[in-house]
Amino acid sequence: MTSGEFELIGRIHERARAGLGAPPEGQTWIGDDAAVLEGGLLVATDTLVEGVHARLDWCGPEAFGWKALAVNLSDVAAMGGEPVAAVVALTLPPGSGDLGDGVMAGLLDAATTHRCPVVGGDTTSGPALVVTVTVLGRAPATGAVLRSGGRPGDAVMVTGPLGGPAVAVAALLEGTAPAAASAARLHRPVPRLAEGALAAGAGATAMIDVSDGLAADVGHICERSGTGVELHGGSIPLGPGASLADALGGGDDYELVVCAPDPTRVAGAFTAAGLTAPVVIGHLTEGPARLLDGARLPASGWRHEVS
Amino acid sequence: MTSGEFELIGRIHERARAGLGAPPEGQTWIGDDAAVLEGGLLVATDTLVEGVHARLDWCGPEAFGWKALAVNLSDVAAMGGEPVAAVVALTLPPGSGDLGDGVMAGLLDAATTHRCPVVGGDTTSGPALVVTVTVLGRAPATGAVLRSGGRPGDAVMVTGPLGGPAVAVAALLEGTAPAAASAARLHRPVPRLAEGALAAGAGATAMIDVSDGLAADVGHICERSGTGVELHGGSIPLGPGASLADALGGGDDYELVVCAPDPTRVAGAFTAAGLTAPVVIGHLTEGPARLLDGARLPASGWRHEVS
Repeated sequence: MTSGEFELIGRIHERARAGLGAPPEGQTWIGDDAAVLEGGLLVATDTLVEGVHARLDWCGPEAFGWKALAVNLSDVAAMGGEPVAAVVALTLPPGSGDLGDGVMAGLLDAATTHRCPVVGGDTTSGPALVVTVTVLGRAPATGAVLRSGGRPGDAVMVTGPLGGPAVAVAALLEGTAPAAASAARLHRPVPRLAEGALAAGAGATAMIDVSDGLAADVGHICERSGTGVELHGGSIPLGPGASLADALGGGDDYELVVCAPDPTRVAGAFTAAGLTAPVVIGHLTEGPARLLDGARLPASGWRHEVS
Repeated sequence: MTSGEFELIGRIHERARAGLGAPPEGQTWIGDDAAVLEGGLLVATDTLVEGVHARLDWCGPEAFGWKALAVNLSDVAAMGGEPVAAVVALTLPPGSGDLGDGVMAGLLDAATTHRCPVVGGDTTSGPALVVTVTVLGRAPATGAVLRSGGRPGDAVMVTGPLGGPAVAVAALLEGTAPAAASAARLHRPVPRLAEGALAAGAGATAMIDVSDGLAADVGHICERSGTGVELHGGSIPLGPGASLADALGGGDDYELVVCAPDPTRVAGAFTAAGLTAPVVIGHLTEGPARLLDGARLPASGWRHEVS
């Protein structure tokens, strides 16, 4: 996301409130991974544009479709929720042959894998491949885990290695072959649905998925929770060939950042379910300072762009 | 919608069922104006692409945004439902200045007018203005009105004049000024939410909104209901300067076609609410023939294209 986009979203938020008021108690509208509506209904929407967020010549149509659904499921995971259904709006260039079939094959593969029925959609023609998916989800019985619930002292954890996709993008831009594991993470990210639900059940106070880079995404939690953060660089798990800078500023990782007062409880829930425990990488502070090994955490975000 | 799009949707439908099975009892997935999920939750998604479905040089950014939400609200209206919330995915060309603000101002105007809070979204950059809106709605207590519920003998009604937007597009393509009323219908369609809800409460068995042209949209009802239809050309209300062909094959009208066994009851509900009664234009038959004044009804649909 570019800074212009952040500003536009801020203005949209203000105008939406001016026209329609604030959300009722218990609901969260603009500003989290997904909106939370009545009855714990979750809604997230995300667009992939060919040549901007993904390149067909790098990933092929099936992975493009997979990713279009997966990044939305990742938003539901970051609320601790489970998917209910998805709708797909597919814009295809004229004369693109069976491109739409390939994209939908990959998308439906992700839908079947993650038990998220595709219940509707729209197909249109346009100047480029654009896929917008909207996913509906159900918050956990204990309530959706928001960005805003973090408290000073909470452990900050991450569910897996970061930076691999950023290294893969750099390799592809240079025309060299990326590490297979990192290319797979870039092209076919796996939404951390089980991890998000387990963390929610184990007392997570705030979560976000790492799409804009760890520094930016942890920053979103700090901003909404009114906390600072202190991260330990040496604890941050890195993907193959990734530097700390790749992890902090890269993005497209789709791992979850989990804040919780009792990291042992979260780790126990993960290991009891046969999953690798999340890694503690720091803790939230009274703030407002955001620190990495005692120095100021750079705030830069990933632009999700591939050209 | 082009025939290629219909075919792609058919293949998507088949594959979605293969991977994820048929909807549970009481739910309707792909194939109606909106999907119907558990608890009567409605979901509709529609995309407007600049230069394909609407042209900024004809309508301006605000009307573009209005229409992007309105066409989705029209889908909720066609189920007899009321809107709950919307999410917006906005793709903007690089360097488009305040285009996004203009589009969102019009969209939020429609949202405020029709009490549909915008609860989330995504902004991205891409090669053209593309706006995908997903609207959530609530079905009436008596259940969503599907395309499939029509029965032989039901009166076929329409809530307003047709063909005006098709005439306006033709004028704009020729470089002449369209009739103001038709241009307004084309650029800022008004979703028939009150009408849809009243019809649902007055025994409507099937509904659809007229987006692809009357012939194609009535055909969708016949196909899903397993009926034929007999229409009376002289009864079909026409917009300013519109011919019967404009009404049948034009589209972009966003009036509702309502099928109901008791048209007097529907008319009474409308007039009691201060609305103009819908016009009876024919009736459903045992089928399968689709007739206009005794001759075969042409099946052609509108392509929603403006260039």
